[in-house]
Amino acid sequence: MSSYDDIARDLVIANRILAKEEVVDAYGHVSIRHPDNPNRFLIARSVAPDLVGAEDIVELALDGQPVRDEKRTLYLERFIHAAIFEARPDVTAVVHAHAEDTLPFGIADATKLRPVIHSGSFIGSEVPVWDIADNFGDTNLLVTNIEQGRDLAKCLGGNNVAMMRGHGFAAAGRSLIEVVRMSVYLPRNARALIRAKQLGGRIRYLSQGEIDARNRGYSPYSTETWRAWEYWANKAGCGDMLRRPGE
Amino acid sequence: MSSYDDIARDLVIANRILAKEEVVDAYGHVSIRHPDNPNRFLIARSVAPDLVGAEDIVELALDGQPVRDEKRTLYLERFIHAAIFEARPDVTAVVHAHAEDTLPFGIADATKLRPVIHSGSFIGSEVPVWDIADNFGDTNLLVTNIEQGRDLAKCLGGNNVAMMRGHGFAAAGRSLIEVVRMSVYLPRNARALIRAKQLGGRIRYLSQGEIDARNRGYSPYSTETWRAWEYWANKAGCGDMLRRPGE
Amino acid sequence: MSSYDDIARDLVIANRILAKEEVVDAYGHVSIRHPDNPNRFLIARSVAPDLVGAEDIVELALDGQPVRDEKRTLYLERFIHAAIFEARPDVTAVVHAHAEDTLPFGIADATKLRPVIHSGSFIGSEVPVWDIADNFGDTNLLVTNIEQGRDLAKCLGGNNVAMMRGHGFAAAGRSLIEVVRMSVYLPRNARALIRAKQLGGRIRYLSQGEIDARNRGYSPYSTETWRAWEYWANKAGCGDMLRRPGE
Amino acid sequence: MSSYDDIARDLVIANRILAKEEVVDAYGHVSIRHPDNPNRFLIARSVAPDLVGAEDIVELALDGQPVRDEKRTLYLERFIHAAIFEARPDVTAVVHAHAEDTLPFGIADATKLRPVIHSGSFIGSEVPVWDIADNFGDTNLLVTNIEQGRDLAKCLGGNNVAMMRGHGFAAAGRSLIEVVRMSVYLPRNARALIRAKQLGGRIRYLSQGEIDARNRGYSPYSTETWRAWEYWANKAGCGDMLRRPGE
Repeated sequence: MSSYDDIARDLVIANRILAKEEVVDAYGHVSIRHPDNPNRFLIARSVAPDLVGAEDIVELALDGQPVRDEKRTLYLERFIHAAIFEARPDVTAVVHAHAEDTLPFGIADATKLRPVIHSGSFIGSEVPVWDIADNFGDTNLLVTNIEQGRDLAKCLGGNNVAMMRGHGFAAAGRSLIEVVRMSVYLPRNARALIRAKQLGGRIRYLSQGEIDARNRGYSPYSTETWRAWEYWANKAGCGDMLRRPGE
Repeated sequence: MSSYDDIARDLVIANRILAKEEVVDAYGHVSIRHPDNPNRFLIARSVAPDLVGAEDIVELALDGQPVRDEKRTLYLERFIHAAIFEARPDVTAVVHAHAEDTLPFGIADATKLRPVIHSGSFIGSEVPVWDIADNFGDTNLLVTNIEQGRDLAKCLGGNNVAMMRGHGFAAAGRSLIEVVRMSVYLPRNARALIRAKQLGGRIRYLSQGEIDARNRGYSPYSTETWRAWEYWANKAGCGDMLRRPGE
Repeated sequence: MSSYDDIARDLVIANRILAKEEVVDAYGHVSIRHPDNPNRFLIARSVAPDLVGAEDIVELALDGQPVRDEKRTLYLERFIHAAIFEARPDVTAVVHAHAEDTLPFGIADATKLRPVIHSGSFIGSEVPVWDIADNFGDTNLLVTNIEQGRDLAKCLGGNNVAMMRGHGFAAAGRSLIEVVRMSVYLPRNARALIRAKQLGGRIRYLSQGEIDARNRGYSPYSTETWRAWEYWANKAGCGDMLRRPGE
Repeated sequence: MSSYDDIARDLVIANRILAKEEVVDAYGHVSIRHPDNPNRFLIARSVAPDLVGAEDIVELALDGQPVRDEKRTLYLERFIHAAIFEARPDVTAVVHAHAEDTLPFGIADATKLRPVIHSGSFIGSEVPVWDIADNFGDTNLLVTNIEQGRDLAKCLGGNNVAMMRGHGFAAAGRSLIEVVRMSVYLPRNARALIRAKQLGGRIRYLSQGEIDARNRGYSPYSTETWRAWEYWANKAGCGDMLRRPGE
């Protein structure tokens, strides 16, 4: 199992990749469960992902509160991460973002976001849409307390991605690399589906059997998975920070 | 209250951000009310926003004329700014731009531009469309005198944004950071709405209560707001010019 | 009137701008009439516009043939330029390009390309579509001889832009800056129109009076026009080559 | 005929170009038949195309297996290349990629991908859609053995491009430059067709005679073809690796 320092460095890389791939801008965040204590997770303090460094990583408990005395401002929406880690022991990493081309699926209700391309398979066959207004009425749409986080986590259920109406999405993965990859290909899958609908006719989605087959074959540290991580890190200008597990 | 030098530097940063984020190209401009004299405002001389430096900032009165002897050419459309500052004492900063994806909403009349994403809430629930032809007939579409500016300001009323038919938009904010942020997220909100309509079905707009809740929670110098400003300035290559109020 | 060296340098800048603004890629070209001899024009030898230097500029006659012994390969489609200069004494500069978002208007026949934004006014109220197949049958779609060039010029008539079916466009201007500007804003106007149609309802085009008003106010070396040229040249990395007439 | 070293260097350039032009990302690959042995082909080991160097090139037989002892991981989908080289002696180079804007044509069934722009002519008049599910049921959609590769090659037949449902495309060319060019203009042709359909009315496709005329005129080392290769290589930052045949 990786050391804390390794995990923190990977989290910095993940932040930079998500910024470079335009999954996040000044807003949006990525977190990872603590390698030694499943009741804690690591996430940056309130700073734009592209500017995150190792010194910005903080350690939070599953109620979203810092485990150490912390003077710096934290992400208002850290409760998204806290609640998903709490509800889903199988989840190792979480992304919340507003990637532009996913947004329409949280606004219009006629078309469900489903995998149409193989790289989109990891979003799974069901992407629920959570509307904060259903249980919390008129808010600023942000998930700013643990109750709202839990409501979102409940809507997410056992799925990998939930759309958040008028806001963005939350994605949960078995590894940091997996959740970053899912977050990069989610908008791509969304665009492919939007354009396929414009072309018209029958849409051929991935079948459940195909989604399952891809899921079974996934390994977070396979050469194929690493290839993307290595590529994205280099593109984001932090290839020098890469460290392959076992090296 | 900030000094003139600080304000001028922030205005340079705002120019660079708007260029980098493709809100403006060679055309479009941003202004800020004078910190010590509400009857004056600062804006660049006629130069592309990406090339603006502190030495390009000029001081204009609310009739759009320079308060000092000025040999350099001024923006033809400075009257947009003058008239909005004149009509709206609550407004501290103004942007006029032609951000591409906002343009369709000033051309087609079937769909109103309204907030569909949380970051678009600041455009407010009503975005009027001003058509210069209504009161001025066939023109070059530019707002080149104070009467035209006042007509636009009247159409804007108490709203934050007005579309200008076949031309662009004018946005008014309580702070420079607010109006820049509004101008960056306006085209994003426009794209999300266009694509949501392509997906079909019912569009779920932000409710009035949600718009109000977000508005109430806004603070121009909160950590969350600063995060975007810091991110955009770094992305635009002028992170070294940043100065946080109070530092 | 500008010297040959000044003209050649401006032509290099124009090439670089058109490449940076994605009006051209490896293909497409820009030409300017010879400052001292209206029966000649300058254009690059066959090389990608982004790689054009002053040494690549060649001088051609109005039949498309080089006026000096020339061993280097010339653009196959130089006859577009030759024929337009021949037919239109009022034209000083020509662009032929395949800017992507203009292409649909040369493929689908239900919507005419017309100005919907003020910066698109210079394309004029009528943009004819030329189909090489009408008079030349099955070709490789390239304008490879003077007869084809003249047929295109005839279709262009007194207009500023002609679409070329399945191929691109030809634009003619009164100055180099004007034709570059027209070529940059043509795809933008095209995108605004495509998206406005997606939004639905009535499309509000620029009126003939507005097009005329903008045309009357145009001056190739006004501060407003120069502002764009200066911005684009800097963005394309050749701001150091700029020379303002009269300086 | 080119030496092995020259071919390997060109293959590196092709990898970099395809990455820069966003035809491939971390995934997708390009191969070339061995210059001296038609039963072998060259392709990179499993690494992102943008990061490929000459040392990453491996030599495979037409069953997709390496001809020398190879410890490094190979592309899972190398069988796409193997099977096409096996079935098509006329083919010198192959690309497999997931270029985003081609994907809708492998998802929606109402519109066939056909040439609408002259630079898209090389995809040919017929672009079949291969669905791995037809003969292999629920898979992970990847072509991971020679039987799947042969099934794809059979669907491709004598055509230049086959779409792969929910996955991407395979393109086959007479030269490396040709297949790279085809791969760059395939998504452009796709976008032009999607947008033309949005504009509505009759779509004017390239005629069979036009496709044939363009095909007849094609020469992989003409000045016109080289112009694009030179441009793309410079844009991808490897202009220094260029070597023109005969030089």
